[in-house]
Amino acid sequence: MDTTQDQALGLRLRDALDGRWHDIKAQSRRELAEAELLTDPLMDSATARATVLEQMKVLVDTGTPAMGFAVDHGGSGDVGASVTAFEMLAYADLSLMVKAGVQWGLFGGAIENLGTERHHRAYIKRLIDLDLLGCFAMTETGHGSNVQELETTATYDPDTQEFVLHTPTASARKDYIGGAGQHATVAAVFAQLVTAGETHGVHCFVVPIRDDEGADLPGVTTSDCGAKAGLAGVDNGRLVFDRVRVPRDNLLNRYADVDEDGTYRSSIENANRRFFTMLGTLIRGRVSVGGAGGAAARVGLSIAVRYALQRRQFGAPGSDEEVLLMDYLLHQRRLLPLVARSYALQLAQNELVGAMHDVQSADEVDELAQRELEGRAAGLKAANTWHATRAIQEAREACGGAGYLAENRLVLLKADTDVFTTFEGDNHVLTQLVAKELLTAYADEVRGLDPLGMVRFATRTIADVVVERTAAQSLIQRLVDASPLGDDADLLSRGTQLSLFEDREKHLLETVARRLQRARKDGADAFAIFNAAQDHVVAVGTAHVDRVVLEAFVAGIDATADPEAKALLGKVCDLYALSVLEADRAWFIEHKRLTVSRAKEIPSLVNQLCRELRPHALTLVEGLGVPESMLGAAMLHDA
Amino acid sequence: MDTTQDQALGLRLRDALDGRWHDIKAQSRRELAEAELLTDPLMDSATARATVLEQMKVLVDTGTPAMGFAVDHGGSGDVGASVTAFEMLAYADLSLMVKAGVQWGLFGGAIENLGTERHHRAYIKRLIDLDLLGCFAMTETGHGSNVQELETTATYDPDTQEFVLHTPTASARKDYIGGAGQHATVAAVFAQLVTAGETHGVHCFVVPIRDDEGADLPGVTTSDCGAKAGLAGVDNGRLVFDRVRVPRDNLLNRYADVDEDGTYRSSIENANRRFFTMLGTLIRGRVSVGGAGGAAARVGLSIAVRYALQRRQFGAPGSDEEVLLMDYLLHQRRLLPLVARSYALQLAQNELVGAMHDVQSADEVDELAQRELEGRAAGLKAANTWHATRAIQEAREACGGAGYLAENRLVLLKADTDVFTTFEGDNHVLTQLVAKELLTAYADEVRGLDPLGMVRFATRTIADVVVERTAAQSLIQRLVDASPLGDDADLLSRGTQLSLFEDREKHLLETVARRLQRARKDGADAFAIFNAAQDHVVAVGTAHVDRVVLEAFVAGIDATADPEAKALLGKVCDLYALSVLEADRAWFIEHKRLTVSRAKEIPSLVNQLCRELRPHALTLVEGLGVPESMLGAAMLHDA
Repeated sequence: MDTTQDQALGLRLRDALDGRWHDIKAQSRRELAEAELLTDPLMDSATARATVLEQMKVLVDTGTPAMGFAVDHGGSGDVGASVTAFEMLAYADLSLMVKAGVQWGLFGGAIENLGTERHHRAYIKRLIDLDLLGCFAMTETGHGSNVQELETTATYDPDTQEFVLHTPTASARKDYIGGAGQHATVAAVFAQLVTAGETHGVHCFVVPIRDDEGADLPGVTTSDCGAKAGLAGVDNGRLVFDRVRVPRDNLLNRYADVDEDGTYRSSIENANRRFFTMLGTLIRGRVSVGGAGGAAARVGLSIAVRYALQRRQFGAPGSDEEVLLMDYLLHQRRLLPLVARSYALQLAQNELVGAMHDVQSADEVDELAQRELEGRAAGLKAANTWHATRAIQEAREACGGAGYLAENRLVLLKADTDVFTTFEGDNHVLTQLVAKELLTAYADEVRGLDPLGMVRFATRTIADVVVERTAAQSLIQRLVDASPLGDDADLLSRGTQLSLFEDREKHLLETVARRLQRARKDGADAFAIFNAAQDHVVAVGTAHVDRVVLEAFVAGIDATADPEAKALLGKVCDLYALSVLEADRAWFIEHKRLTVSRAKEIPSLVNQLCRELRPHALTLVEGLGVPESMLGAAMLHDA
Repeated sequence: MDTTQDQALGLRLRDALDGRWHDIKAQSRRELAEAELLTDPLMDSATARATVLEQMKVLVDTGTPAMGFAVDHGGSGDVGASVTAFEMLAYADLSLMVKAGVQWGLFGGAIENLGTERHHRAYIKRLIDLDLLGCFAMTETGHGSNVQELETTATYDPDTQEFVLHTPTASARKDYIGGAGQHATVAAVFAQLVTAGETHGVHCFVVPIRDDEGADLPGVTTSDCGAKAGLAGVDNGRLVFDRVRVPRDNLLNRYADVDEDGTYRSSIENANRRFFTMLGTLIRGRVSVGGAGGAAARVGLSIAVRYALQRRQFGAPGSDEEVLLMDYLLHQRRLLPLVARSYALQLAQNELVGAMHDVQSADEVDELAQRELEGRAAGLKAANTWHATRAIQEAREACGGAGYLAENRLVLLKADTDVFTTFEGDNHVLTQLVAKELLTAYADEVRGLDPLGMVRFATRTIADVVVERTAAQSLIQRLVDASPLGDDADLLSRGTQLSLFEDREKHLLETVARRLQRARKDGADAFAIFNAAQDHVVAVGTAHVDRVVLEAFVAGIDATADPEAKALLGKVCDLYALSVLEADRAWFIEHKRLTVSRAKEIPSLVNQLCRELRPHALTLVEGLGVPESMLGAAMLHDA
């Protein structure tokens, strides 16, 4: 196949990966390339911050920031398009992606989803247009993953009809807050609402923090988090409140309000449920960070594969030329399974964005769909961001000394995305959350990240364990039915792969449920029970995400009309599935899902797939959809 | 156990890890702490470079740079002490470690080991005292791992009795050269020696590159590599030579010389053997980079474990306080196996430094010992630097948002050490080199990194495969003999662990030898044969290093007199061994080394060891030997 044909097929793969919001992706590729948003890695932090702020103004003109807000509030009302456009920013500049995400996704999202008409009227249009710069002050020095235990207080004073925001301890300081370091003039502050001597849990308040000249307002002390690994263009900072007063109206009161006299009212009686309902509306942040992680991984892998297609080292006998890196089996093994995983995760992300769009655009709230969505967003955020960390690291190493230079971008990608595994919930905590939701069948009593609920409410009996499919349900059922597991299972059959993934999840879930129930009956303490099973719980979460991702891949292939693209995607899907099986094949043997001889074939099959995909390496990279002009790696032009 | 007792036991563990050059380590801890060498992460590159150069002058006064050079040449002649002191610099500042390594280890080492009396007299004293700043110009844009194919030429001109250094192509440009960016005035340049129309392979030449004012000398063009991921204090640069003339005397002529009339002479007739003999004398660089990687991993893990002993998140029922991160099984599983691996690698590094010292200080060259040493240095360099990448990454993630701030040092450690997997030979290439040396029984014909030699000279028959022990030989033999493998093998028996590690290496080696031989007989092309087996070859190298490291751990425990320290080290060794077995347990099942039921126990045993070591977490970190005052992580003082 010559290069032109490679590229043509690559574009058809790209179409398959672009999915429902393909027009937004196409528009972003055009606009981002024109805007030349790649920042200079040598910029000092002050210049980088100023530059990113300028770039945000360019984004306003593209109209994408408005997409995340309802038409009634001054937006253009297309959630899916909005999240897709943010994901694409990762191709250009991750500081810009994060800063835009803070302004329009987190801060804007809090106003949009937790506020009511008076807040929408006062803030949405201004924040879309950057006339109002905000920040999202949730995390504190002492509490990140455990948001329910935030210490900042907002105490209602009926005499003045104000809330008094206060930082009672050193660990209650708001920390790592994007925008708080320099640019934000207002903060969406999460604090324990106290009225009439009673605490009602975490609520969100609009709190002005700086005047127009950038000076701290009375009672507010801002400071800068200083240098970070990356994201030099984001002004992360800290906020300390010393009895700062805001009007009663500044409570974002969609789910709860305080009357003039201090009476607390909420449409959701259960405090726990109320808290997680509020938090659930903010799901967009988690979806966006996962999407951006996936996009950054695609950039990194595109650079490394293209480099491996031009770089030669060591001779082959009978040839004057040295061997291309991409022709070494080891190099194929290092990069191609990661490329396959990028395909898989992009298709799963597309499904997720679609599901979120539908749930959030529906006239009525479907509570179960919302819960399922939250679990999936948590799991895919962890999968995408861990993949980014791993893939970009491997890409750096695969490019040797050249990979270490800033001019080749990989180390900047790594430094910028490294915190994504922490952002919007630590990945280990999120993976456990996924498992807990499955284990407790979305029981209202145990929402959130508290590990103990898992033990107390692991009420599923074995008969309850049903694996819910998230994509292409009837097709997948047919494939699974046609490929029963057994000694002669064909590992390259899609049905076998689906069965193995599904069976592992089901078994892990059943056994951990049984284990927790059994231990609970013995009367041991809940924390010890949970803790002894923690690795098992994490395995459930991981197996679930692996299965959801494989199902999305199967659905994505099914939706592809072009036969050549479809065939190639099938092979990429094989590589994804077999790489997952290879890494965990001890489990499949130990639990008699695979015979020893069948399991032993897996590494050879992975080698075989790498060899078969090698001639398509450039096509696969074209398919990842990062325009060559946006890779920003000097070494790719030196060849 | 109270904190004082923890610390006392920690110090006894530290003694066990400090090994033969414990006095140098103690001295370094004192001196480095006094000198306050931790650089400010906010420094710009120009300031960082100047600062590191100033810090080097402080090092001169400590006397450690002189240790790497013979007394006759103006040094103090203690190779082991010299390498140990460099390793310790990683506790302070990695830019300093690298820049010092370039000046005294690489540049100085080339003069010392490849030069003769006239070079020693002219340069050694001056370079020790920093009156002469040099660089080590080996790597080119086109060739890093494959040094034999460097393109720079040094053509002898008998008319003027000069060598003419020249960069014939763009890919022949010297690249990534530490010191070439700004400070070095002279370079040790590796180039193809050409005389009388014949090329004699790569040799090393002393080439002045800058005048006293820092301007490029005629014919030399230096340039700067620009920003990197880290190592801001190191001035990496590029060198291009346009027919630069140096006197004939500037050839470092210990192993080969050119007469006035252009006649080439060498004491080593075989060109390949000559090249690798020269390269072999430069082993110190590889040993030092591995050592520094190990040290950086210890710093990272010390920070993360100490943080996990102060940071709490999520509540335990019946307690007002949240749970310490270190009390979560998952957190133990993330950090403690890495801590155990740091212990293992430090003991292996100590053995390596000792062996190098003995080989290099011996009156006669023991060729086999030298070859064995080179293989071990390559393998441990890869193991130590990959461990650094992995451990520091995990440490960063385990510290959440705080871990992402420069003030907590982890991201700087990560950025600085990231290139160590590339420095001094790409880790994947080095791991294959280890395997090739074993496979070819150190055959002279196939030295070096050329993958094809492996196929051509894999002459060992199965009967030849003997696993050579590198430490505590008779003790290990006794332990292995006492623990035959079988269905009732006790995985916590040291003999069983040693047998499993040894057996895996032997089996992998035998089978890959058979595979390569068989394929060769079929008459297929050598590259295809090698390439199809590349993952198998890498597995041999990895299994060998795992075994060498375990044996060093066993020897290290044996050498520890204190019974309490010895017992604790034993448990740490169990965790190291079982973590390795856990990751590769599919292999042990598939090759009938472990029954399925035995293999299935391994994850539970790892959990059990983590639980048992949890109360000793602080002790273990004290034992890693990084003084708390040198950790440089702001968050550890906030508690």
